[in-house]
Amino acid sequence: MHAYNEAAERFAEINKLSAVSSLLLWDSKVMMPAAANTSRGAQIGALTAVVHAKQTDPRLAELLHEADQEHNQLDPWQRANVREMKRLTAHAQAVDGALAVAFAEAKNAAGAAWLVAKAEDDFSAFEPHLDRVLRLQMEIAQAKGEALGLAAYDALLDQHDPGTSKATVDRLFGPLEAYLPSAVERIVARQSQPLPLPEVPIDRQARLIRRILTRVGWPPEGRIDHTEHPFALAGVPGDPRITTHYDPANPMFALLAALHECGHGLYELNLPKDEYAYQPVGQYRGASTHESQSLGVEMQACRSDEFLNWLFPILRDELGVSDPAWSDENLWRIYRQVTPSMIRVHADEVTYPLHIILRYNLEQALIAGQLEVSNIPDAWDDEMERLLGIRPEHLSEGCLQDIHWSMGLVGYFPTYLLGAIKAAQFFAAAKRDKPGLLDALGRGDFEPWIGWLRSHVHRHASLYTADELMQRATGSDIEVEPFIGHLEARYLA
Amino acid sequence: MHAYNEAAERFAEINKLSAVSSLLLWDSKVMMPAAANTSRGAQIGALTAVVHAKQTDPRLAELLHEADQEHNQLDPWQRANVREMKRLTAHAQAVDGALAVAFAEAKNAAGAAWLVAKAEDDFSAFEPHLDRVLRLQMEIAQAKGEALGLAAYDALLDQHDPGTSKATVDRLFGPLEAYLPSAVERIVARQSQPLPLPEVPIDRQARLIRRILTRVGWPPEGRIDHTEHPFALAGVPGDPRITTHYDPANPMFALLAALHECGHGLYELNLPKDEYAYQPVGQYRGASTHESQSLGVEMQACRSDEFLNWLFPILRDELGVSDPAWSDENLWRIYRQVTPSMIRVHADEVTYPLHIILRYNLEQALIAGQLEVSNIPDAWDDEMERLLGIRPEHLSEGCLQDIHWSMGLVGYFPTYLLGAIKAAQFFAAAKRDKPGLLDALGRGDFEPWIGWLRSHVHRHASLYTADELMQRATGSDIEVEPFIGHLEARYLA
Repeated sequence: MHAYNEAAERFAEINKLSAVSSLLLWDSKVMMPAAANTSRGAQIGALTAVVHAKQTDPRLAELLHEADQEHNQLDPWQRANVREMKRLTAHAQAVDGALAVAFAEAKNAAGAAWLVAKAEDDFSAFEPHLDRVLRLQMEIAQAKGEALGLAAYDALLDQHDPGTSKATVDRLFGPLEAYLPSAVERIVARQSQPLPLPEVPIDRQARLIRRILTRVGWPPEGRIDHTEHPFALAGVPGDPRITTHYDPANPMFALLAALHECGHGLYELNLPKDEYAYQPVGQYRGASTHESQSLGVEMQACRSDEFLNWLFPILRDELGVSDPAWSDENLWRIYRQVTPSMIRVHADEVTYPLHIILRYNLEQALIAGQLEVSNIPDAWDDEMERLLGIRPEHLSEGCLQDIHWSMGLVGYFPTYLLGAIKAAQFFAAAKRDKPGLLDALGRGDFEPWIGWLRSHVHRHASLYTADELMQRATGSDIEVEPFIGHLEARYLA
Repeated sequence: MHAYNEAAERFAEINKLSAVSSLLLWDSKVMMPAAANTSRGAQIGALTAVVHAKQTDPRLAELLHEADQEHNQLDPWQRANVREMKRLTAHAQAVDGALAVAFAEAKNAAGAAWLVAKAEDDFSAFEPHLDRVLRLQMEIAQAKGEALGLAAYDALLDQHDPGTSKATVDRLFGPLEAYLPSAVERIVARQSQPLPLPEVPIDRQARLIRRILTRVGWPPEGRIDHTEHPFALAGVPGDPRITTHYDPANPMFALLAALHECGHGLYELNLPKDEYAYQPVGQYRGASTHESQSLGVEMQACRSDEFLNWLFPILRDELGVSDPAWSDENLWRIYRQVTPSMIRVHADEVTYPLHIILRYNLEQALIAGQLEVSNIPDAWDDEMERLLGIRPEHLSEGCLQDIHWSMGLVGYFPTYLLGAIKAAQFFAAAKRDKPGLLDALGRGDFEPWIGWLRSHVHRHASLYTADELMQRATGSDIEVEPFIGHLEARYLA
C-alpha cells in the first residue's frame, strides 16, 4: 500500500491547504475590511500556486496508477478514495498551464466587466469577455472530457457534481418543464396577497435564528455571521460556519437563509472527522447532494405544515411582534406565496426550477453553437416569457443577474435544481423510514430527519457515487416524481 | 539583478504564505469555535511545512550569495532587503531538520504541560518538559550563533529583535535595576488608594474605544474584536487588526489594551504597501521597535496629563457614568497608580520593568549554567522579593505565569522593556521636533505624534538597522535616560 499511502498523504496536504483557502474566502466576505482586498488577492494567489503545483505534479498520477495495482489490499473507503483521487487528478492535469492561466485571466476580466455591465445595464462591453470565457471553458471541457472519457458538458458537470450527466439532467428537467408553467398558473390563481411585514430589529432576528437553528442541530458555538450574500463554509473539516443576511425591512429573509445554510453546515459538520477528514473520499458528495441538504432543511422540513404550526408562536414571541401582519393566517400566505419574478435568488420553490431550466437550456444552446453570445439577452427574455410569462425590462433583472458564466461556471446551475429534486426524494424516503418524522417536526424536534440524513447521507461522504448513495438511501435512482408530488401536496392539495 | 529578483520573488511567496498563517492565528483566537482546534492545527502544519521548505531551499542561499555580487546595481532598499533576506535565511538554514522537529515537538509537549502545571500549581511535572525545551533552545542558539557570527544569546535576541545584543540590554537594564526599586517605594509612599470603578456595559466601552481610536488614527473600518488576550495582527500587509478584552467589571482595561494594540496596528498600517509589502525589508523593525509603537500610544501619549485632561469628560459622556468614582480626582489616582504586584501583564509602567529584569536575570543564569531548571521556582520568588519586595504564594503567580519559555521564547522578554525605553526616547525626540505635540494631545489631536512616528519609524520599515533607525530618529543611540526621566516627571515631580 506504499503508493496509496503516499498519494493519500499528498492529498491530505492539498486538502489542508485548500481548507485554508476556503477560510481566507470566508474571512474576506465576513471579516476583512475592503481596503485589504488587493493584499488578500496576493495571498490567495500564492496559496493557489502551491496547491496547483501539488495537484499537477506528474508523480501524483503515477502514484495513483500504482495504487490501482494495490486494489486487493485496500478497503472500500480506500478504494473509493483512489477513485476520487484519480478523478480530481484527471481534472487538474487535463488542463495545461497556458490554458489554465488564460482561463484564470479571462475570468478575472469577465468578473470585473460583469459588475460594470450589471450596474450600467449594458451587455455590449461585457460580451467579448463572456465570449472569451465561454470559448476557453469549452476548450477545457474538451480536454477534461478526453481525460475522463466523458462528453464535454458532462465533464463540466463532473467538476461540480461527479456522476451527473446531461442524460440525467434531461430526464429530470423535461417533466418539470412540462409540468411547472401550468402548475404555477393554477397556484397563483388560488392564492391571495399577504400583508407586508413590519420592520424587526436585527438583534431580535438573530435571537430567533439562534434558537431555531439550535433545534435543527446547529452547535451553540457554531458561527452565524452577517454577509451580503448568505453562504456556508465548506471543505474545512470540523469548522463549519454559516452566514445569513440581516435586513430589518425584510424580517423573514434572514431566518430562511440561515435555515438553508444550516442544512449545508450540518452536512459539513457530520462528514468524517478523523482519517478521511482531509481525503477526497471524506468530502461532500457533489454540489447537488450538498444543495439537497440545504433544501432538505429549508424547504422540506422548515416549510412543512407541521413545523410552521410550531414555529409561528415562537417567532412572534422571540421577535416581540403582535401586529396583524404576524397572524398565523398572514404568515401562511407569506410562506406559501408563489409569484413569477425576474430574479432567481429571490424566487419561491415553485418558480425557482424554471429559472434553472432557462439557464440550462441556454447553456445547451451555447455549447451546441445554436446560440451566439451576442444573442443571449434576447434568448433569455424569450425563455422567461415562455416559461414564467414575464419579460425583463432591464438586463440586470435578465441575463446579467448571475455572475456564474463569467466565472466559468457553465454546468453549475443544474445542480441547484437537482438539489431540490434530491431533497424531495430524501425527505419522502425518510418519512417512509421514520413514520413519526412529521409529528416530530411539529414539536420542533429535528432528530428523526437530521438523524436520517446523518446515517444515509452525511457519514458516507464520497464513499459511494452519487447514484449509489441515492439508491442506498431511497431504494431508487434519482427521480423527479417525489419533487412534483411534494409541490402538488403543498400548493395544490 | 537576476539573482536579487529571483530571491525577492521567493521571499514574496514566503511572506504571502506567512501572512496567511498569521490570519489563521488571528481567526483561531478571534472567530474559530474551539471544536475546530485540532483541524486548524493540521492546516497550520501543512502551511508551515510549505513555508519551511521554501525557506530552507539550498538554492535560496546561493541566490543571496549571487545577489551580493550585484551590490552595485541595487538601490538602498534592495541592499537592505538582501541584508534581511540573508539574516532570515541564515536563521532558517542554521537549524537542521531533525533539530527543528525535536524542538517543535518539545514545545508542543511543554505548552500542554504548562497549562496543566499552572492550573494545578505544580512545577514538578512541567520541569522535564521545560528542561528539554531549554536544552534544545540552547542547541539552536549555538547553531544560529555560528551561522550569524553571534554569541548564543545574541542569536536568540536576533530572532525577534535584530541588532539587539546582550551588551546593549545590560547597558540599559543595569541603571533601571538600580533606580527602580527605590523609585517604586517613593511613589507608593505618596499615593492614595482610588475608589473602585462600577461596572460598565460592554457596548458603551466599545463605543468609547471606537471614538478614541478614531482620534488616534485607527481606520473607521479597522477591526477591533474581543479576545481573551488582546493582540495586534502583524505581518499581513494592508490588513491590520487589533483586539481588546472587554470586562464589564474592569471598565478601564479594554480602552487601555485597545490603545496599546492600536499603536501596534498603526505601525503595521503604515508599513510599505506596494513593492516591498511582502519583502523582508518591508516588515517592522524588530519586536522592541514594535513594542515602542504600542507603548508610545498607550503610555507616552495616552497617559500624558494633556491627553487625560481631554479624555476624562469624554469618557464619562460615552460611558454614561456620573458616580463619584468617575470624578477627575479618582481617575487621576487610577491612571497614576503604582503597586508592586505578582503578575507581569497586570503591572503598571513603573513596576513592569522589574518583572522583565527578573526574567532576563533568570534567563542569563540558566544559560550560564548557574541555575538549574528545578531551582527556577525559588530563584523566581527570591528575585521578586529582591526587586519588588513581594513574594508569590503560588507558582501560578510566580514562575508559571508566563508561557514564553515553554514556547521556546528565551530572549523575548527583554524586548518588552526595550520597547518602553525606545518609546520614551522617541516621544522625547518628537516633543523636541514638534513643540506643539503635547498641546495637540490636549485637544485629542494625535497627528503631530503619529505623523512623527510615520515619518521617523513606520515608513522606513526595515530599511535601516534598529540602531540606525534610532540614531536617525532621535540623534542618539538607544539610551535609558529618557525613560527614567519620563517616570520621574510623571510619578515623582
